[in-house]
Parts: sequence; C-alpha cells; structure tokens
Amino acid sequence: MISIDELKQYFQENSAQIQEEYFTFLKFASISTDPAYKDDMKKCFKWLQKLIEDMGFTVEEWPTNGHPVLFAENMSAGPDKPTVMIYQHYDVQPVDPLELWDTPPFDPQIRDGEVFARGAQDNKGQCFYSLMALRALISKGALPVNIKLCIEGEEEIGSGGLIEMADSKKDKLKSDHLIVADLGLQGKGIPTVTLGLRGVLTMTAVITEGTTDAHSGEHGGILYNPIRAMVELLSKLHDEKGRVAVPHFYDDVQPLSDEDKKILHLDFDEDDYQKKFGAKALGGEEGFSPLERAWIRPTLEINGISGGYAGNGFKTVIPSKATAKISCRIVANQHPEKIQNLVVDFLKRNVKKGLKLNIELSETGGFPMRTSATAPIVTAMRQSYEEVFKKPCRAILAGGSINVVYTLAQYCNQSTVMMGMGLDDDNIHAPNEHFGWDRFQTGFLIIARVLQIIA
Amino acid sequence: MISIDELKQYFQENSAQIQEEYFTFLKFASISTDPAYKDDMKKCFKWLQKLIEDMGFTVEEWPTNGHPVLFAENMSAGPDKPTVMIYQHYDVQPVDPLELWDTPPFDPQIRDGEVFARGAQDNKGQCFYSLMALRALISKGALPVNIKLCIEGEEEIGSGGLIEMADSKKDKLKSDHLIVADLGLQGKGIPTVTLGLRGVLTMTAVITEGTTDAHSGEHGGILYNPIRAMVELLSKLHDEKGRVAVPHFYDDVQPLSDEDKKILHLDFDEDDYQKKFGAKALGGEEGFSPLERAWIRPTLEINGISGGYAGNGFKTVIPSKATAKISCRIVANQHPEKIQNLVVDFLKRNVKKGLKLNIELSETGGFPMRTSATAPIVTAMRQSYEEVFKKPCRAILAGGSINVVYTLAQYCNQSTVMMGMGLDDDNIHAPNEHFGWDRFQTGFLIIARVLQIIA
Repeated sequence: MISIDELKQYFQENSAQIQEEYFTFLKFASISTDPAYKDDMKKCFKWLQKLIEDMGFTVEEWPTNGHPVLFAENMSAGPDKPTVMIYQHYDVQPVDPLELWDTPPFDPQIRDGEVFARGAQDNKGQCFYSLMALRALISKGALPVNIKLCIEGEEEIGSGGLIEMADSKKDKLKSDHLIVADLGLQGKGIPTVTLGLRGVLTMTAVITEGTTDAHSGEHGGILYNPIRAMVELLSKLHDEKGRVAVPHFYDDVQPLSDEDKKILHLDFDEDDYQKKFGAKALGGEEGFSPLERAWIRPTLEINGISGGYAGNGFKTVIPSKATAKISCRIVANQHPEKIQNLVVDFLKRNVKKGLKLNIELSETGGFPMRTSATAPIVTAMRQSYEEVFKKPCRAILAGGSINVVYTLAQYCNQSTVMMGMGLDDDNIHAPNEHFGWDRFQTGFLIIARVLQIIA
Repeated sequence: MISIDELKQYFQENSAQIQEEYFTFLKFASISTDPAYKDDMKKCFKWLQKLIEDMGFTVEEWPTNGHPVLFAENMSAGPDKPTVMIYQHYDVQPVDPLELWDTPPFDPQIRDGEVFARGAQDNKGQCFYSLMALRALISKGALPVNIKLCIEGEEEIGSGGLIEMADSKKDKLKSDHLIVADLGLQGKGIPTVTLGLRGVLTMTAVITEGTTDAHSGEHGGILYNPIRAMVELLSKLHDEKGRVAVPHFYDDVQPLSDEDKKILHLDFDEDDYQKKFGAKALGGEEGFSPLERAWIRPTLEINGISGGYAGNGFKTVIPSKATAKISCRIVANQHPEKIQNLVVDFLKRNVKKGLKLNIELSETGGFPMRTSATAPIVTAMRQSYEEVFKKPCRAILAGGSINVVYTLAQYCNQSTVMMGMGLDDDNIHAPNEHFGWDRFQTGFLIIARVLQIIA
C-alpha cells in the first residue's frame, strides 16, 4: 500500500517529465471526424502504444473502418486479483473557429496553472493522469490489480467501430470493474462520481416542395413555403409546459427513485448558471428541477435548422426545402430505436399534407447508462475521492452521452463508475479548452488510490 | 415609321453582335446585396455607361451609399415630342446554392434557344433588348420620342438609394410616360401588360440565449433552445386557414373591384403550375383563388432560417442564436411602415419570455403600385403587344415588387406601364436562370414599336 503522501512525492519528483510527455500527447492533432487528420491520428496512436508498452503492458491495435482502438493488458497482479478496465479516448474534437483561440490548439501552454490545448481535458488530460498513476504504481512494484486499457480513437464521432466489434472481443474486454475516466466534478473542489449518462439518437428531417427556389413575390400566396411547414411541424414537438408532445415519449421513463433522491446531488444554482453561460434555466419540463430535467428526463432538441437565405442582406425567395437536425437524449429504461420510431411517426403524421418529408436516421442510437450506487467500484471510487479531497463525495448523473459505456459495462459485471476531474467551464469542444495542472495531479492520486482500494 | 419587318431585319443583321454584347453584360457578377461584389458592380456600370454613351446618350452617374444609378438622356426628338422614361436595373440576385447550377452563373451559355446565366432575364436581358431597340431606332435616324433611361444598381436590395434621392432629382426624372421593363408574360406566347405590383417589406429576427453554443447533453432540459423559441414564434404567424395571424394585418386591404374583375385575367391552371414548379397551390388564404392570393392579398413569408449546425453529419449543440428572414408583400392601400410595425409588435409579444429577440428592419419598405388601365402608355403598350403577337393583350397584376416604381410614377403623370418578356419558369432569383433568345427579339420589337405608337 502506497500512501497518498508517497504518491504526491512521486508526482513532484517526476512532474517535469510527466508534463513534457503530456504536452507531447497534446501536440498530436488527433481530430477523428476529419479525414485530413488521419495521419495525425496514426502518429498519436503509435506514440501512445510505445509509451504504454514501455510501462509494461502488452498492446493490441484493434482496427476499425475509422481509427483503431488501443487495447492493452497488464495482468501481472495474477488471477486472484480483480481486473479493472479503464476506458478513455485519444481522439479530440475539431478546433474551429480557430480565430477564437488565444494560443494555437496543438501548441500546449500553461497559464495561471491551466494547460491550454485541444484535448487538454477531454480526454487526453484525463487519459494521461490515469496512465501516470499506473506508471507510478508499476515503478514502485505496487500495481495491486490486473489492468486492461481500452483507449479508442472514435469517441468524438460516436464510437461506432468499438461498439460494432465489442461482442467479438468480449473475452478480451471481460473485466471485474470498469472505470470511465471522461467525466468531471460538479464544481471546483467538489469530489464527484457520475452514476448515469443519457442516451442519444439523432435524425435529419427535410421538407421539400417544388423543384427550385421560387420568387416570394410571384409565388407568395400560391406555394406553401417549406420553411413555414417546417416551423409549424417543429413547433408541435413541445407543449406549453415544455413537455415533448410526441405521444408515448415518456412511457418508459421512471420517476426518481427514493434511492436516487437520497444519493443524487440535485441542487442547482440558477444565478451561477446564468453567470457562467449567460442563459436562464428556462428549458425543459415544468414541475422538474433543472438537474432533474437534464439527468432523469428525456429531451428533444433541434440542433440545427436551415432553409432559404439567412445570411447578410436579404433574398426574397420561397426555398424548395427546409432542413432540421433533431436529437433526443433518453434516460434509463428508454430504448433508442423505440423513441426514434415515435418521433419519426409524429413528424410524418403532423407535416402539412401535400408536402414531402424525408427523414434520415442516425446509424446508431446510444443507450442510456445507469450504474448502481452500490456497485463495488462506485464505493471504492467514492472512498478514493474522499481520501484525496477530505470531503464527502457527491453522486451525480450526466445529461450527456458516451455511447460506448453501455456496451462496455455489459462485460464488466455492471460494476462501472464514471469519474474525472473536468469542470463545466473547461471549454471542452470549444475554443481555449483548458485543464488545471492541479487537477491533473489530483486525478493521478484518485486513480492510484482507487486501484489499491478495489484490490 | 419603321415597320415590324424592318425591325426584324435589323435584329437579324445585328444578331451576332447583340448577343455578344448581351453575354458581356451577363458576365459581370453584379450582385448588389454582397459587398464582396462591389468591384464587379462598378465594372458593370462603367461598361454599360460606355455602351449607352456610344448610342448617343449623355450619361450621368448618380452615386448612392451603395451602387450608383445610371441616368441617361437623349432629347433629340425635341420639345414637341413626348419624353418616355424607361426604368431597369443592372444588379442581380446572389447565386447560391451554386452547386445547383448546371453551368456557372456568370458564364452565359445558350442551350435549346435559352440563355442560361444569372440576370439572363432579370433584368439584364430585358434591359438589353430595350437598349438594342433604342440603338436600332437611333441608327435609322428614327427615334420618335425623347428618352430618359433610369438604370439602377440596387433593385434587388430595395432601391433605397434611388428612392432616397428621387425627390432631389425630380426635374431630371420628370417625363410624360414611364415604361418599367422588368415584368413578364402570363404564359408563353401570351401578350401581357402588368397594371400593379405588390409592395414589400423585410426584416431579420434573431433570438439569442446564452453566450456560446452549448452541449445539448449537458444543457438539454436546462437551456431554452433559441431554435425552439424561433419555430414556436414563427409558427404563430399563420392561422389554420392560411391567413396571416397578425392582428389588423388585413385592415386596409380592399376587395377586388368590379373594374378589376372585368380587366384582370385571373384564370389559373393548377395542373400546369404543378408541372412547371413541382408544387401544388397550397399556400395562401382559404376562400381566394391562387391569383387573387398572389395579386390582391398580402402575404407573409419566411425567406430564410438558420441556427445551430445543419450541414453534413451532426453536431449536438444548443446554439446561442437562431435567425429568421421575414418578408411581407402588401397590396394597394396598405402602408409598408404600418404593416412592419404590426408584425414587429406581434413578434415581440409572442416570443418566449426571458429570451432576447432582436429585429432588424429593412431600411425602406416598398409601396404597392397600381396603374390606371386607361393611361396612354398602357393603351400604347397593349397596341404594340397586339401588333407583334397578333393576339389580344391581357392585363394582369404581379405578386412581386419593384419598390421604386411607386416613386418614379409620381414624376411621370401616373402614365406608367409595366411590361416584359419574362415567364414564370425562367428561374429568376434561383439556380439556372434563363431567358429565351426568341423572347429577347420579341421584347426588342415591342419596345421599338411602342415608342413609335406613343410619339
């Protein structure tokens, strides 16, 4: 058993080298969604592979149609010890709008204790403190459990490759516990574990009428404008109480259990939210608190809309089509395909008769994920947070989705915990992403400790 | 007096040169709404100026805040002869979506007798056959009237500059008759004069919430999505009978008069419309025929909408803003400012409380225009059409708007006629705009004849 003080000392002694390697990791422009970065993805993978092999792991490259999964094992603790899988990803989000970055996204820099770079937090930062925790334990000859690493390159584009191959790799993936280190804290200095994610499904709806854009003077009053048809259709998706108006949308949703009420930290500071995001908590359903609306209630959002000319100046057209991007976040016990069908049916039934509606569905809907508050890895993780922070650990849910967690949890006895050191103003997916160097060290300590607790 | 046969012969003999110059005119990317084309606008003006000067006109450049007006005079017929002003424009609409053009918009090409290019019809084609008619008459020493040309560069953006300066230029603009050659035929081979236009007003509505695009998982259910607020707001603009739901919107609208019923050709072939435009006549108000809806009833259209990401793939954001472009077409006896105020008030009253709605108004609303069926230039124009087509000439109204006509008519004794050779499937304002070379010649004949008839 290595104490927290010993771990801190190790970190301090190796701090310069850790930071240098972390920065090297951040310099790879591993943007998974853009084929232009395929080579950067490959270089990043190879660099990571060597680093993990040098730590004492055997590494496998699992190819996909996109970017490979890095799978690694160190089973030196032996068959009597539990096996813990740690899930992370080495791909990052695109960087545009580039002009809003204060310093280049792939040239990491530290300012006031914060490391600025794309991926600084999501997920290279969290991935790297986990790896450094493992290296520390190994170097002290004190790795107390068997470790599997599943570090994929397609998280930011839906994890299609890993989800698809998972069943064929189930013997490899099989573990006693799963740690997903891609989440965050409810606030600075607040120890937090995450017990659930919403699922997600997306679709694109296109209404067309007429073969070409038409002059709004000549045709206005004759043609039915597809934008009008689209706004009339989309406006029916919510009722006046903010509920999604699609029949049966909520059928499978379960109320907040007494256990959840006890565990989950549902307090929400509306003023703080407005200060951070410049927006009020006006969305979602009446009768639920903001975090209930984001965590345990499904939502339907229009993520994009376009039609006609909406740029500078004015174009007096009636366009021949209007497009909307729609997503639903779904919660425990809801099935993505069922919800998808309900929404599609609703749209088809409610579109103006005589106009053509085409709906393109996303390939994979992501299942929602709930983990038991009493799963052994959850208990261990809470203990680790409490030892490091010296404060009670909160349990929360997340409104977002990580499609692959539902899949991986099936091979890990449902003993899954989601954790991390992120804060909601780290600008992940946005310009000037950053991650605190102090939080990096804390994450290092938490991972190193939890593996000793669960052993 | 030159006969139609002589005019036809002139056209045939000069056909190659006319077409070459017409194509040169079309090659200027004179898009008035986009500042990126300011230089193209200027080059187009200079080219046109030289051409008209070479024809024997004195040309003036009337500067505006945007693009200059080309004003030209040839008063050689003398004070005993009437002065006819011809109004046209050298600016064109934007060209997007560019990918839907079969050939580049500013590389004119002739296929099956149709000239394809942005502006081929609206209004460079109609402008150019008028100029060629004048050149023909002048070259024969047979220009029977004094001519003023008012060719502006801001018609597609509302004619703000010309309308604003008109009063200060009234001595120059003063004429006995006004020909607006920017309209069309009710159908191929059907001689048609236009006795009225709708007015137009435009506005841009932007709803904002939050300082940046937000993650739709983390914030969905907390934030009120501005796209949702926008579709809910816009969906209230029409009722179930297709009427504009803005209170008092129709207050000043007059019913179809008995005289109008007698003169106007209101027949509408729904099958033909569907064949031409791939769309049914589903828009507008119940209880009115399609052409009544387009001519004597005001309309409100959403000409553009945007928000979030609506391109390929999917971006699960809640955007911080949504934008809509809204226009109204108004009819005789309606006042643009009054209607503008009604719509703005309605939008402000109906937007989701707590979200910010900003409305940017178009600078100038355009008045509707009605001309008397017995004005001398109308009678002359009908005669010219009937001589060239050898068929009775129809009288119609137009659903579209040419803001400046109302203004110019004031300086021309209200002896105004609107004419042209456009067809409703010329794709003006749309990809693959085209104009028949045969119609170009017919327009040439009609202008040449009408000037002799009115002399």
